[in-house]
Amino acid sequence: MSFDLKQYIKDRCELVDSRLMMAMPSDTELPFSLHKSMRYSTFAGGKRLRPLLLLAACEAVDGDISAALPAACAMEMVHTYSLIHDDLPAMDNDDFRRGNPTNHKVFGDAVAILAGDALLTQAFILLSSPFFASNVPHDRILAVIHEIASAAGSRGMVGGQVVDMECEGKNDLDLPTVQYIHTHKTGALIKASVKIGAILGGADERQLSSITRFGEVIGLAFQIADDILDIEGTTEELGKDAGSDQARGKATYPSVIGIEESRKRALELLNMAIESLDSFGEKADPLIEIARFIISRKS
Amino acid sequence: MSFDLKQYIKDRCELVDSRLMMAMPSDTELPFSLHKSMRYSTFAGGKRLRPLLLLAACEAVDGDISAALPAACAMEMVHTYSLIHDDLPAMDNDDFRRGNPTNHKVFGDAVAILAGDALLTQAFILLSSPFFASNVPHDRILAVIHEIASAAGSRGMVGGQVVDMECEGKNDLDLPTVQYIHTHKTGALIKASVKIGAILGGADERQLSSITRFGEVIGLAFQIADDILDIEGTTEELGKDAGSDQARGKATYPSVIGIEESRKRALELLNMAIESLDSFGEKADPLIEIARFIISRKS
Repeated sequence: MSFDLKQYIKDRCELVDSRLMMAMPSDTELPFSLHKSMRYSTFAGGKRLRPLLLLAACEAVDGDISAALPAACAMEMVHTYSLIHDDLPAMDNDDFRRGNPTNHKVFGDAVAILAGDALLTQAFILLSSPFFASNVPHDRILAVIHEIASAAGSRGMVGGQVVDMECEGKNDLDLPTVQYIHTHKTGALIKASVKIGAILGGADERQLSSITRFGEVIGLAFQIADDILDIEGTTEELGKDAGSDQARGKATYPSVIGIEESRKRALELLNMAIESLDSFGEKADPLIEIARFIISRKS
Repeated sequence: MSFDLKQYIKDRCELVDSRLMMAMPSDTELPFSLHKSMRYSTFAGGKRLRPLLLLAACEAVDGDISAALPAACAMEMVHTYSLIHDDLPAMDNDDFRRGNPTNHKVFGDAVAILAGDALLTQAFILLSSPFFASNVPHDRILAVIHEIASAAGSRGMVGGQVVDMECEGKNDLDLPTVQYIHTHKTGALIKASVKIGAILGGADERQLSSITRFGEVIGLAFQIADDILDIEGTTEELGKDAGSDQARGKATYPSVIGIEESRKRALELLNMAIESLDSFGEKADPLIEIARFIISRKS
């Protein structure tokens, strides 16, 4: 196959980064500390997996990715806010992320909380901006806002984070609980990313349903791969302490079904996801290759 | 005048409260702690000033308030999230609000942060909900989402909170700085409330500009009145420690221009606000009476 994933990812990340640069207040604008803090975490070397998935899903249904770019950036803002808040001392109390000090270690807890709040809010400023609205039918934009908010809210990502925290250190976790945490905490935004890409690309109902199924399955596989990585990756590769999930008694797949069984499960899910895109032909190649890359990544 | 403000406020608050009840996940839905925490602060005796202003502005331009009700509830969710986060130990570290323990004192810091996050997100779930979208033109909804997000974000409320914190304990604050804090931290949401009410009511450009001016002026007057109240109110009236702004060295109008001058300024602003609604006739009576009530309130 001639598809060059590395180059594709590089190009798309540049596109997303330059749009993100424009979509956020400059750090020379008051209040400086807040805008510096928002930019610090947004440009801290994130892999842009959600924007990549969103744009590739748009492409898979023959959509115009330039119309989907604001939504891809909004998704990354929501993801970044969640990382800032998760790292806080009151939550996971992490000092490092991607090899750099976490937001609150640099800017203090108060500014970190507010930078997270402002990033979440900025996502909706961007999604409702007149520029986006002039390029995309308004009913699609409202559907996208509803998807992203629902995936991020108490029935999605935030709900998953609450249960994740409440289960920390418990010894008798069952698979449904771990699955609840994974599908909510990480899965919801991943699923929403591909769904939103498809909506903005003008997917018909059948396409939307296949891509949604793909997103659901990939979201879970992604988190299982992440759990495995936490055990097998080195601290250098991860940019944070390896084995930190285990040390904390976090609910993970390997802790419940073992590492071999988890690896098997992740691969099964990847294959299921790929199958669900059977009818798309080669237009779905980028989406499939990104999924493969996510599940087999080393950091 | 025959307008019964007390009855009017009571009726409108009941309307808002019953819609809010419906618009939030039940506390019997998982995760229980999160949904309990979201509801605890939402139904903790707030005066619903922003929803009242929003609905009255809609009424002032002859709009249908039932179409504006979801936006009024969304505004209250954003306001409530901001209170939960402001009260956190990392921020103002307040133990009581409206006579009750603050959210983090009941649910812990982590759940309080996440309940705030989820309430902010819930506002956008509600604003983009199919029910709202089926009753209101989509361009108006997008304008409303843009207003509320912009008012709440880093160039609005969150920006004001950052500067407020950074100025705490400084002795040499000037009036422009205090005014920046007030117009951003409280003013932005108040102004957005009346503007959104007018947009949803179908205001023409002239009406929208008058009401926006009204909101700007009332927002500042409201915060000056709040500053005065913090000095003159009793702890019982306020439901929190009286004089707490002063004890903390908070940036307030009385601390910069004195209490008599502040009182004079608040009244001047109230009169300016009322004048800006001259052309509306008696349809603006509720809006004006609510403004009067806000500026002269005792708690």
